[in-house]
Amino acid sequence: MKNILIIGCGLLGSSLLRRIKEKKIAKNIYIFEKSKKNILKIKRLNLSVRIVKSLKEGVINTDLIIFCTPMSEYKKIILKINKFIPPNCLITDIGSSKVVTSKIIQKFLKKKISWVSSHPIAGSEVSGPEHGKSNMFVNRWCILIKEKNTKKNDLKILDKFWKKIGSKTVVMSSEKHDKIFSMTSHLPHLIAYNLVKSAQEFEKKQNYNLIKFSAGGLRDFSRIAASNEVMWRDIFFNNKNNVSKAINLFIKSLNEFKKDINLKDNKSILKKLTQTKKVRSKIIKLKQDVNKPDFGRN
Amino acid sequence: MKNILIIGCGLLGSSLLRRIKEKKIAKNIYIFEKSKKNILKIKRLNLSVRIVKSLKEGVINTDLIIFCTPMSEYKKIILKINKFIPPNCLITDIGSSKVVTSKIIQKFLKKKISWVSSHPIAGSEVSGPEHGKSNMFVNRWCILIKEKNTKKNDLKILDKFWKKIGSKTVVMSSEKHDKIFSMTSHLPHLIAYNLVKSAQEFEKKQNYNLIKFSAGGLRDFSRIAASNEVMWRDIFFNNKNNVSKAINLFIKSLNEFKKDINLKDNKSILKKLTQTKKVRSKIIKLKQDVNKPDFGRN
Repeated sequence: MKNILIIGCGLLGSSLLRRIKEKKIAKNIYIFEKSKKNILKIKRLNLSVRIVKSLKEGVINTDLIIFCTPMSEYKKIILKINKFIPPNCLITDIGSSKVVTSKIIQKFLKKKISWVSSHPIAGSEVSGPEHGKSNMFVNRWCILIKEKNTKKNDLKILDKFWKKIGSKTVVMSSEKHDKIFSMTSHLPHLIAYNLVKSAQEFEKKQNYNLIKFSAGGLRDFSRIAASNEVMWRDIFFNNKNNVSKAINLFIKSLNEFKKDINLKDNKSILKKLTQTKKVRSKIIKLKQDVNKPDFGRN
Repeated sequence: MKNILIIGCGLLGSSLLRRIKEKKIAKNIYIFEKSKKNILKIKRLNLSVRIVKSLKEGVINTDLIIFCTPMSEYKKIILKINKFIPPNCLITDIGSSKVVTSKIIQKFLKKKISWVSSHPIAGSEVSGPEHGKSNMFVNRWCILIKEKNTKKNDLKILDKFWKKIGSKTVVMSSEKHDKIFSMTSHLPHLIAYNLVKSAQEFEKKQNYNLIKFSAGGLRDFSRIAASNEVMWRDIFFNNKNNVSKAINLFIKSLNEFKKDINLKDNKSILKKLTQTKKVRSKIIKLKQDVNKPDFGRN
């Protein structure tokens, strides 16, 4: 590939940038970043990348555009770049929900331009280009979205790109994607935010100093609940139907748990508490987490 | 201290054992363990500890007894050791809920014997003596429970003991303890179990292979949901009133979250998603978690 443009250079954009450079995946790599604070940070990081001053300048000669901004920015950017996109340019993004963005793309992107959406399952609770790292996506899954009008060859180019990055790829529809991730990612984040919020409310109400005793469980959730708020707002809003359903399923199950506790139903609760252990073993076996107690953090 | 007896030598019992030996806190240390499998493991670990064959043998000359069994075992053990406990012996335990065990102790323990309850805020998702480590309690909080009849001197002895172990101590009532930990520990564990359970149900219903995409959030919860089931059943049952209230608070808050999402209430959701970030900073500042993105696990 000759030229790649990354739009939005935060945690994930800068991680991609580092990896593309390290693996020499493109001859030239350009960054468009609207935050002056981030631009300063990128300059200080000495990543020797060309930061373009306008979207036009970045888009005009590029082979691949990667959207790494919050999803709520897509429409605005699409409308700005439409008339400069070269005909053979491929576009992708790394957003965490797909159905709504797919509709936006279909509605606003200039016809005959290919956009094949990606979702690398990677990230962190910290934000900003200074936290990027070149191995962010290595050995992680990257979901490639196949729509009715997706061209085989575009999918092939993107598949090759993510494999060069070091990811494992899997292809699915945006509908299936949004269902799966409502459960494995969106609900867990919402739950984590909500748990920390409940603890805050309880602390206020009881006038207790709770947080210093967070090592018994709460602290794990607080990490996830420190994730970027704009990104997560966009995800929750875009995937609201699936997330709502996931919340309902979760509350139903929680009420059954409460019933077991209140009735001291030994058999039923032990069944619940042992079955979940199998999932952990499976996650470890599938290399989706480190095989060390307590994440090896101590 | 001359003699210490640890009853139950799993993850925490064996961690205490290691630390007591390392810091030479007692002249002699005895273990009573009913699981033959654990006894074999302890022998293989070469911890050079005396494993007593009967509770009587362990109790008869001891200065300090530490209950490290599941809380549902306390009553049975108390009834077995009552007639052998020497008059000046102090008893403690490391159970994670306090009001119910306090009632059991008051009802069944031989009069004039002192039991001051402890709760070290430490643990892991793995069980068994082979996972114990001598620094398990170092720099961690240990809650000491002060009841109406708790003798100052007993509390002092126990405080000294835990400080020698390396813990920071704080004294509170069993009622306050159970309220605080229903929110910082019991609810988080219940939520984690419930989330993994919801994901399992969803996977079955949709016939999707979810677990392999767990790196987007679910995997963090799966760690907590792999904790020892008997220990957690006991905690949920013993602290059921506070846990029920915590569940109710959590569900109320979750429904508000759902409302924000369905109404796309930008202001309200951003407030929720940013406030929680402060808690994470506080937890890091209070040294209740490591200050590394993603727990430093990658």
